Amino acid sequence: MMLEELKERVCAANLALVKHGLVVLTWGNASAIDRERGLVVIKPSGVSYDTMRPEDMVVVDLEGRVVEGRFRPSSDTPTHIVLYKAFPSVGGVVHTHSTCATAWAQAARSIPNLGTTHADVFHTDVPVTAEIPDARIRDAYEEATGDSIVEAFRRLGVSPEETPAALAVHHGPFTWGPAVEKAVENAVTLEAVAEMAERALALNPDARMNPAMTEKHYSRKHGPAAYYGQR
Amino acid sequence: MMLEELKERVCAANLALVKHGLVVLTWGNASAIDRERGLVVIKPSGVSYDTMRPEDMVVVDLEGRVVEGRFRPSSDTPTHIVLYKAFPSVGGVVHTHSTCATAWAQAARSIPNLGTTHADVFHTDVPVTAEIPDARIRDAYEEATGDSIVEAFRRLGVSPEETPAALAVHHGPFTWGPAVEKAVENAVTLEAVAEMAERALALNPDARMNPAMTEKHYSRKHGPAAYYGQR
Amino acid sequence: MMLEELKERVCAANLALVKHGLVVLTWGNASAIDRERGLVVIKPSGVSYDTMRPEDMVVVDLEGRVVEGRFRPSSDTPTHIVLYKAFPSVGGVVHTHSTCATAWAQAARSIPNLGTTHADVFHTDVPVTAEIPDARIRDAYEEATGDSIVEAFRRLGVSPEETPAALAVHHGPFTWGPAVEKAVENAVTLEAVAEMAERALALNPDARMNPAMTEKHYSRKHGPAAYYGQR
Amino acid sequence: MMLEELKERVCAANLALVKHGLVVLTWGNASAIDRERGLVVIKPSGVSYDTMRPEDMVVVDLEGRVVEGRFRPSSDTPTHIVLYKAFPSVGGVVHTHSTCATAWAQAARSIPNLGTTHADVFHTDVPVTAEIPDARIRDAYEEATGDSIVEAFRRLGVSPEETPAALAVHHGPFTWGPAVEKAVENAVTLEAVAEMAERALALNPDARMNPAMTEKHYSRKHGPAAYYGQR
Repeated sequence: MMLEELKERVCAANLALVKHGLVVLTWGNASAIDRERGLVVIKPSGVSYDTMRPEDMVVVDLEGRVVEGRFRPSSDTPTHIVLYKAFPSVGGVVHTHSTCATAWAQAARSIPNLGTTHADVFHTDVPVTAEIPDARIRDAYEEATGDSIVEAFRRLGVSPEETPAALAVHHGPFTWGPAVEKAVENAVTLEAVAEMAERALALNPDARMNPAMTEKHYSRKHGPAAYYGQR
Repeated sequence: MMLEELKERVCAANLALVKHGLVVLTWGNASAIDRERGLVVIKPSGVSYDTMRPEDMVVVDLEGRVVEGRFRPSSDTPTHIVLYKAFPSVGGVVHTHSTCATAWAQAARSIPNLGTTHADVFHTDVPVTAEIPDARIRDAYEEATGDSIVEAFRRLGVSPEETPAALAVHHGPFTWGPAVEKAVENAVTLEAVAEMAERALALNPDARMNPAMTEKHYSRKHGPAAYYGQR
Repeated sequence: MMLEELKERVCAANLALVKHGLVVLTWGNASAIDRERGLVVIKPSGVSYDTMRPEDMVVVDLEGRVVEGRFRPSSDTPTHIVLYKAFPSVGGVVHTHSTCATAWAQAARSIPNLGTTHADVFHTDVPVTAEIPDARIRDAYEEATGDSIVEAFRRLGVSPEETPAALAVHHGPFTWGPAVEKAVENAVTLEAVAEMAERALALNPDARMNPAMTEKHYSRKHGPAAYYGQR
Repeated sequence: MMLEELKERVCAANLALVKHGLVVLTWGNASAIDRERGLVVIKPSGVSYDTMRPEDMVVVDLEGRVVEGRFRPSSDTPTHIVLYKAFPSVGGVVHTHSTCATAWAQAARSIPNLGTTHADVFHTDVPVTAEIPDARIRDAYEEATGDSIVEAFRRLGVSPEETPAALAVHHGPFTWGPAVEKAVENAVTLEAVAEMAERALALNPDARMNPAMTEKHYSRKHGPAAYYGQR
């Protein structure tokens, strides 16, 4: 059996999504990539979290072909692969239908950067994707979802490192990171800031953060001047 | 003792409603039908979930007469029976007072299909029933509740297979499925999409999903072209 | 030691409030009355729920004098006593600061009867009390809180049996019942219907239940024609 | 090793924030001061709560220099120090990103004193700080955050004893108390009243508490005439 350690980490990441309250039933999926071998480890499709074990994870190549595994891979696998191909620094991807982030996706609104909880992790608003053309929805839809995320970041001039999250319109959040554990953390933060932003705008529709604070909080945790955490 | 396996499944389904946070106190009930024998197994009325065991389940026939059981059946039994009679593909029925779905029922509004979480399971808006005439509320009210659900689906041209859920106006959600376990899952999904839709409309009162995405997500999981899950 | 069984039940009722998520820190209190002896058993003031035991409960008479107990009784004791004196059918009283019911009290609005979850337990809107005059706030305030509840029911022509709950304006909910266990259940229901009503009005500010359904649901569970639960 | 008992209490306080649902991931921090020695014990920066032990706490002096500890102190340490210097009665400080209190901070609104849950602990509205000038955001930002809290209390004529909480604008809540355990309790209360006030204003935008009730509830628990709890 190959990629045993990565399977354990991907399985643990999927279970962490349940523990953090981001996933119910069989919704959501986490994956990680082995960049050297060009292989992705991902959750099987529609399998219960109650009995999920590392050996149930599916290994696919970057064309989406199953290389190892008894199960079919997550139906969202093509979306993960597009993100791994387009964003070379990404080591792990997470997709959930967490309540508040999904509500923003259903509302077709980007999540505005209203506070330091957001700016600590996401440098910009968390972009919502543009509508996917009907022809692409009907054919290779999951790939088109990935393309719409990549397109949004290019159009807005945002890098996937500075803002490791997107909302697939009408669908829900995708997050990523250098490792799958970080992608899970970013999914937790995204749901929290989605709820905070909804509540803040209900209290004050004109709420906006001072741009100097955005820069300060983002740079406290990221880049050469970072001073948060242990180094 | 008859129908032992079905009693175990119905008891487990009722307890699952508590575990999923859809039921408090003694609200809610789940049932399953044995189509060959024409018998329904249902939760007893007003019994605590803390001590509920399979042998407490009540067996009734399709006229609502108790065939076996120490307890009285759920007061909503006539509603379940109407659904079993009118919807021949249904094997299990669930009723809850889950918070967000009940709020939509109290608001007398159907839950709009605003996202893929909804479309993965429910093909259309989840219909709210019309007002029940006062005369029927006073006499055979629970049967009238079932009739109002059947009537809503006929009026709207929606099949109970494509959208296995309804909101009884001012009352709360009913869900169903080919098996009682699926009816429980549909109750979980319904509560989630009820909350998401409420939040999405607060963020954007004009939110609407692209119809092509509705079709795509529904057909990913249902019908001849389905490719979600293990097959 | 006296009233041992009642102390156990009152202690269990107080702990049930925590378990149901209605109480944090030391907020909230439950009591029960022994009508024959004219004695009330109530939670001590400001004692942690983590270590609370039946022998910590305080026994007071109907003038509020401590008859037994190492601790001071809840500061809300005079409110409980007013309710026991004015409502002879009441055997137990519960006060919490549960989030949604308290929000209605802070909004100085009665909770409208918008659905069957409400009507199953509360026959009418759950009344909010009138403002307490400043002079009474300064002197014998807790007694005045009880008086304001009694006054609201008299003014509205509502009996404490048909609607066993009130909102003390700017303060929070009180519930009661023939036994303290029922008062706890009513506190659970009240918080649920408070949340449902808030959400329902956000979805439809004109939401109102058909009066015939109100009567039907209330009479399913109460009075001579009741047919809910086991008999 | 020094200050062992205080390290245990500060560690327990940080873990209590997680238990009360006020903190996810590594957000939030609690500290306590030994006034005699002029030393502060505080949570290390960015360390997981899952494995946190008393010996991981960091000891700093009132210039922010690490006196003992393997880890770097919380990046918010300068804010804590400003509060200890300006508010001599304070023995413990807590900072969280709890959802509802943070939403008020993001909305740049003080939390109005709408009910007795608030008035029992906070005598006035919980103030939001003014915007921090850009120059100070870029240089010594965390100290400036502390200064903005102190400035708000001076400007409003509110004492840190009567209202032991503030909202750092766009950021989140800080609470304090004579001991770190009380600062944790105040953080719990603050989150509760933040949620209640948001819901109350949604139900009634003109909600306001009678000032006589504010005084009554505050004085029930504080000052010479207090009669809540055990004495």
